Amino acid sequence: MGSRGGWGRKHAMNRAYRTAGIISIGNELLSGRTVDTNAAYIAGRLRAIGLSVVCTYGVADEEPAIRRKLALAMEEADVLLITGGLGPTDDDLTRQGIAALLGVDLVLHEDLLEQLRQLFERRGIVMVRKNEVQACIPQGATAIPNEKGTAPGIRTEFGGKLLYAMPGVPGEMRHMLDRFVLPELRQYSAGQAIVVKRLRCFGAGESTIAEMIGDAMQRGKNPLVNCTVHAGVITLEIVAMAPEPAEADSMTVGEEQSLRAALGHLVYGTGDQTLAEVVGECLARNGRSLAVAESCTGGLLASLITDIPGSSRYFTHGWVTYSNQAKNTELQVPAEMIDKHGAVSGQVARAMAEGARRRSGADYAIAITGIAGPGGGSEQKPVGLVYIGVDSRDGAETSRFIFSSDRTFVRLRAAQTALNILRLKLRI
Amino acid sequence: MGSRGGWGRKHAMNRAYRTAGIISIGNELLSGRTVDTNAAYIAGRLRAIGLSVVCTYGVADEEPAIRRKLALAMEEADVLLITGGLGPTDDDLTRQGIAALLGVDLVLHEDLLEQLRQLFERRGIVMVRKNEVQACIPQGATAIPNEKGTAPGIRTEFGGKLLYAMPGVPGEMRHMLDRFVLPELRQYSAGQAIVVKRLRCFGAGESTIAEMIGDAMQRGKNPLVNCTVHAGVITLEIVAMAPEPAEADSMTVGEEQSLRAALGHLVYGTGDQTLAEVVGECLARNGRSLAVAESCTGGLLASLITDIPGSSRYFTHGWVTYSNQAKNTELQVPAEMIDKHGAVSGQVARAMAEGARRRSGADYAIAITGIAGPGGGSEQKPVGLVYIGVDSRDGAETSRFIFSSDRTFVRLRAAQTALNILRLKLRI
Repeated sequence: MGSRGGWGRKHAMNRAYRTAGIISIGNELLSGRTVDTNAAYIAGRLRAIGLSVVCTYGVADEEPAIRRKLALAMEEADVLLITGGLGPTDDDLTRQGIAALLGVDLVLHEDLLEQLRQLFERRGIVMVRKNEVQACIPQGATAIPNEKGTAPGIRTEFGGKLLYAMPGVPGEMRHMLDRFVLPELRQYSAGQAIVVKRLRCFGAGESTIAEMIGDAMQRGKNPLVNCTVHAGVITLEIVAMAPEPAEADSMTVGEEQSLRAALGHLVYGTGDQTLAEVVGECLARNGRSLAVAESCTGGLLASLITDIPGSSRYFTHGWVTYSNQAKNTELQVPAEMIDKHGAVSGQVARAMAEGARRRSGADYAIAITGIAGPGGGSEQKPVGLVYIGVDSRDGAETSRFIFSSDRTFVRLRAAQTALNILRLKLRI
Repeated sequence: MGSRGGWGRKHAMNRAYRTAGIISIGNELLSGRTVDTNAAYIAGRLRAIGLSVVCTYGVADEEPAIRRKLALAMEEADVLLITGGLGPTDDDLTRQGIAALLGVDLVLHEDLLEQLRQLFERRGIVMVRKNEVQACIPQGATAIPNEKGTAPGIRTEFGGKLLYAMPGVPGEMRHMLDRFVLPELRQYSAGQAIVVKRLRCFGAGESTIAEMIGDAMQRGKNPLVNCTVHAGVITLEIVAMAPEPAEADSMTVGEEQSLRAALGHLVYGTGDQTLAEVVGECLARNGRSLAVAESCTGGLLASLITDIPGSSRYFTHGWVTYSNQAKNTELQVPAEMIDKHGAVSGQVARAMAEGARRRSGADYAIAITGIAGPGGGSEQKPVGLVYIGVDSRDGAETSRFIFSSDRTFVRLRAAQTALNILRLKLRI
């Protein structure tokens, strides 16, 4: 892979790298169209291997500006991580900026061009001429394989510093960083071992969890606990520093025990695990199956479940019964029940779950009915009202929730809460 | 409000401001704990009043670093927007950094201190001594009222440039920007009206579209076209600048016509419209209904459709027939057909669509079956192979695709492509 001796060649290094700078390139970042999420992702990953980010730059798609900011960042940091501007269009100028910094030309690499051609061929697309620039690399630099897209990355050394340029598309960048850049940097980063461990929690708010874990989040502590929240999932990140990895590791183990003791069943997993993942693993392990019936979440619950590779081992059937007629014909929810209690009711959630389990023959069935909004609410049944039913051999149960905020949030929260109810039932 | 003559005093200005720099201050931004959403928000707001952001900086909570980056940004931009580092703790050093840049001392303002005391009293909290620093402002600068929190902002002029420092908490920053900073900047921004219009395209890659529209994306053009890609959707943003808004507006109209002429049916909408939105609007307008049957996308297609408020007007039924048995019992796909051609085949996609339309009575039915990966592929049927069937009163059609890359991408691309097929059928 790559060129000039191939990626993975060992480079002679006579110093340790401690600091890093991040340069994010693209007009879309300066116009406000796009939030730069790459910088934070890279910074977090570097921190975990003991490299400290000392500066970030956002730069327009202009060669002189790119060259200037690269030179500035090199004064401040040992390693430069660059994202964006590697695409095929005229405003993609990162490779030109790097070449200008190094004072070299761009060189077309036939092997990269051939890889590009094959990639397009596999996708059944004619490769237009504009794409050829993606096979160009500054003279003396190395291509970093892009396993998720067309534009290879660029790696080079200059003035005792290391430069890595990666695509701006987050999925491509993350994969390239994790698979090719971090393994190399890990060899060179110096001194303190940092071990990071994440606990994933669901079922309480950020401030409640902060109160439950006491002073673990206090600045200056080691291990230190950081807390972030995304889509109702609270992630507690334990960061331990010590001269030796084993020592840092045992510090995280101790901290994890205290956090688990304080939070009990609120902790559902570790790392990047999703609720759908832990539920799915448990079902697969026990040879159990799952079906779902959705109204207001409209397929989102099934989609979260089937996001997990291998979900066909336990997930068999899903129904999106958006109309009342569909609830009746597909899940045998009695029309009179819908007339009497309304489609958004505990009775209908229960009947949907029972119908889904009966028709699919699955061990568990989850059903969701609610009012996602923005329209359709009333005083008795406001926007955000959601009923969740779960049916199993132990019989059916329903719960009632009111989720606030917008349509997207209500739908996501309802789907996550449904998975959480099943998780608690499975005693995970 | 404020001090030294009060906020809102007219300042004598003898030049117009065209460019801006954004400096985001805080260790949390460099450690990866926090994504800097402020910079994009500010950039978007500035662009709407004709100020163009030319650089962004992320800086640690260190006075020398802050001073240095302020000086650098002043070389590049007419106006500096600074966020973060105005809190009461020891690592909040923005006011010190500005004072160092100006070569002045911090001055305690009694009126600001009194306002702070009253604020704490209203909240029923004892004001600790550490908070007093928030009443300190660099000599000669003005305080900007903070109506959402405790730390006032700072406004000053230096070397012909304008500097505004605002809190890092997004809610406080946004309010201060919109209420105090933008109204002042609007007076000074130089005459140019900017009109932005977006075209949304689907069905070809970024490089193909770039080739089709010729030199419209070339730097320096007015109107200028920027191109971004997200989940297969290409957004072309037309930015026109002119002394008068009406003139800029008519420039975007002309550019839009050329782009539409060049791209034909690849353009599906404007603004932030999604494929699900334009398809849904067309169905609703014509009183038509839609049902879907999904295998590899596992509910994602239904979820995209029901993301749209009011989708119950046209979307009635969805099936996630993940197992072969479900395809047979719920959609009457013959078991022999699955045995003979496999669940991932054009025949099964067609039978799923026909089954979904028959059972639901909908005007249109879309079906998707494929191999999302990472497992389950073979030489004949690789990961990424997807068949999409559409059934309507005109009969059923199927198409075959190979989407590359990972599970998430294959699923999303398959669902978007299915919507696009229906869009083209509806002649949108």
